[in-house]
Amino acid sequence: MDWERLAQELTIATPSKIILLVIDGLGDLPIEGRTPLEKAKTPNLDRLTRRGVCGLTDPVSPGITPGSGPAHLALFGYDPLRYQLGRGILEALGSGVEVGKEDLVARGNYATLKDGLIIDRRAGRIPTEENEKLCRRINSGLKPREGVGISLYPGKEHRFVAKFSGPGLSDALTDADPQKDHKPPAPTRPLSPDAARSAEIVNRFMDEVASLLSDRANANAVLLRGFSKFPALPTMADLYKLRPAAVANYPMYRGLARLLGMKVLETGPETNDLFSALESGYGGHNFFYIHYKKTDAAGEDGNFEAKVRAIEELDAFLPRLEALRPDVLAITADHSTPCLLRSHSWHPNPFLIASPTAFADDVAEFSERACGRGHLGRFPALQAMPLLLAHAGKMTKYGA
Amino acid sequence: MDWERLAQELTIATPSKIILLVIDGLGDLPIEGRTPLEKAKTPNLDRLTRRGVCGLTDPVSPGITPGSGPAHLALFGYDPLRYQLGRGILEALGSGVEVGKEDLVARGNYATLKDGLIIDRRAGRIPTEENEKLCRRINSGLKPREGVGISLYPGKEHRFVAKFSGPGLSDALTDADPQKDHKPPAPTRPLSPDAARSAEIVNRFMDEVASLLSDRANANAVLLRGFSKFPALPTMADLYKLRPAAVANYPMYRGLARLLGMKVLETGPETNDLFSALESGYGGHNFFYIHYKKTDAAGEDGNFEAKVRAIEELDAFLPRLEALRPDVLAITADHSTPCLLRSHSWHPNPFLIASPTAFADDVAEFSERACGRGHLGRFPALQAMPLLLAHAGKMTKYGA
Repeated sequence: MDWERLAQELTIATPSKIILLVIDGLGDLPIEGRTPLEKAKTPNLDRLTRRGVCGLTDPVSPGITPGSGPAHLALFGYDPLRYQLGRGILEALGSGVEVGKEDLVARGNYATLKDGLIIDRRAGRIPTEENEKLCRRINSGLKPREGVGISLYPGKEHRFVAKFSGPGLSDALTDADPQKDHKPPAPTRPLSPDAARSAEIVNRFMDEVASLLSDRANANAVLLRGFSKFPALPTMADLYKLRPAAVANYPMYRGLARLLGMKVLETGPETNDLFSALESGYGGHNFFYIHYKKTDAAGEDGNFEAKVRAIEELDAFLPRLEALRPDVLAITADHSTPCLLRSHSWHPNPFLIASPTAFADDVAEFSERACGRGHLGRFPALQAMPLLLAHAGKMTKYGA
Repeated sequence: MDWERLAQELTIATPSKIILLVIDGLGDLPIEGRTPLEKAKTPNLDRLTRRGVCGLTDPVSPGITPGSGPAHLALFGYDPLRYQLGRGILEALGSGVEVGKEDLVARGNYATLKDGLIIDRRAGRIPTEENEKLCRRINSGLKPREGVGISLYPGKEHRFVAKFSGPGLSDALTDADPQKDHKPPAPTRPLSPDAARSAEIVNRFMDEVASLLSDRANANAVLLRGFSKFPALPTMADLYKLRPAAVANYPMYRGLARLLGMKVLETGPETNDLFSALESGYGGHNFFYIHYKKTDAAGEDGNFEAKVRAIEELDAFLPRLEALRPDVLAITADHSTPCLLRSHSWHPNPFLIASPTAFADDVAEFSERACGRGHLGRFPALQAMPLLLAHAGKMTKYGA
């Protein structure tokens, strides 16, 4: 099905409101018989489940473990196999770096080079202030070159974004990162003939940085990865006639939302801030994406109890979503992050729609297992958006 | 989804081991309320089910009854609508006949012709020794012809493989087989203009055989069906970086496995031989396909009790699979062969993955009905291979 064409044809602009709460990495595997979601006390999630309809989603397709980019794209109705986003572009947009159509961006690390080897890919996680100083030093110290401008934008600790601006740049480049400590620096290599000049520019820049910082014992080199250009994506306004907003306090998710044309609402670092931002911005939009990160972080740490606590913390805020009385409240995960694996996985994700037009099934508890018995069955996450729009009365009939 | 491209991009070579047990034609319909699988006492299957995750697969898609070729291709991750294998090629490879890129092969039967009618399509199932003699007689008696060599390879009873070698042969040919007794011989017809010469060669060969054998009262004609050329298939090593092995004691399944680049392990005719072959070859490979035929044979015979016994016989061997401690043990069927229908059918198949990373669902019994409530839901068999590879830790993340 060409969902995008169908969406443009069938969606209508209405004032009805959709909230999509994405609990990052929520899905898990049972340990001693129960998953974190099964173990957590979630009276609010369970109440919503009883009045909603449930299912399980596959982010890309069964067996495929998605990165955060493809997992989120699918939830927003963008085929993750059609659109592939470089990590660099997500990081850049999330850090508030303006990216233009001709720009090439990458994620950077300060690293420590000694005797020709990268001995620490994170330069001992230097303080953010030192990172800011280094970026200023490099930005002002680089020799001007013809046809391309280069700027570094400091992030947290050792991380930064590098932006190369100018015509004819290509992102068909391998990571300029040895991936492991105690290996020599790895220059980027072009993946297609027309990326040869870009590879040369990037490698010359890395050499120049190393000589600029040669007086330092640590943080005296840079690594670059996830080279990417601005992807050609339709916006959610183009596709669905929505006025979408995003509430997220991690750069990558803010960046992804901006890419799809969402207004990224100002918010703070606490869970409470997410809900306050949503409440403040609620009048001006009709689609809201809220991103909750703590569950994924606990899964990546393999910390079952922290994941239980993260779920319980979030559950306590849900009445504030209900109080807004959205026409559709959907709760799901972008992907699973089982504590057992300490990484993203391919397992399917619990999915819930609470809405007056949802077929309330018999599922009484929001969990991986219980959602597997839901009325929505198991379906690709790419079908979530059509369901949300349908339950919000934002899609007209197909055909006569 | 272009699974093949994705598989090549995402799979990694690891020592983890996968066993895929295919119980041919296992799926069935209830008679007096229970299917053979539900009636059979299967303590080992049920124990594996309790620690695994279950679902139901559709070999091609709902409602489509597959032949053995497409049903198996799908399980191995080859789109059965993209790759179509002639029965001839499978039979030839399974019989150990070398097939080259320019060869055209077909399955053959000796048949009995009388008064211009095929009165017995199997020539009274002549002894294999007589078959061998007839093949020698034909191979040496055929007149040499320009640009094409013809050889017959005897099989069991009345069956043989015919191989036509030479440039420009096409397999776009109808079966040269009246399909029913007491009908006149059916010459092959070309299905495309460029198969006209091949049809002429085949029909001339059949006429020549009939005159060579005209002194005989039975087995005095041949029928040919399933014309096929060597298909262009990537191997499982190409696609998945696996070192795959097959254990099967029927020619067709051995042939299919060879086509996909599996090492076909030596085995004997008994069920015990299958497991011994697996045990002997276990060290040298990391993917094992084991094929069990008796269930399908019982279904084709419409023999419910024999099917129950075949299932129970197999169940008793399963501890030997578990003792090998594979990282992933998957058990399923290629297709259903309901006793009621005495033939392959379109019904979905029980599917089980036992693995430390499987989400152990509530299914406690391996059956068509119980697997329908499994956490994997109902899915195309083409998605089985991604699941097996994922559970074995043989796939990296898709996208950032």
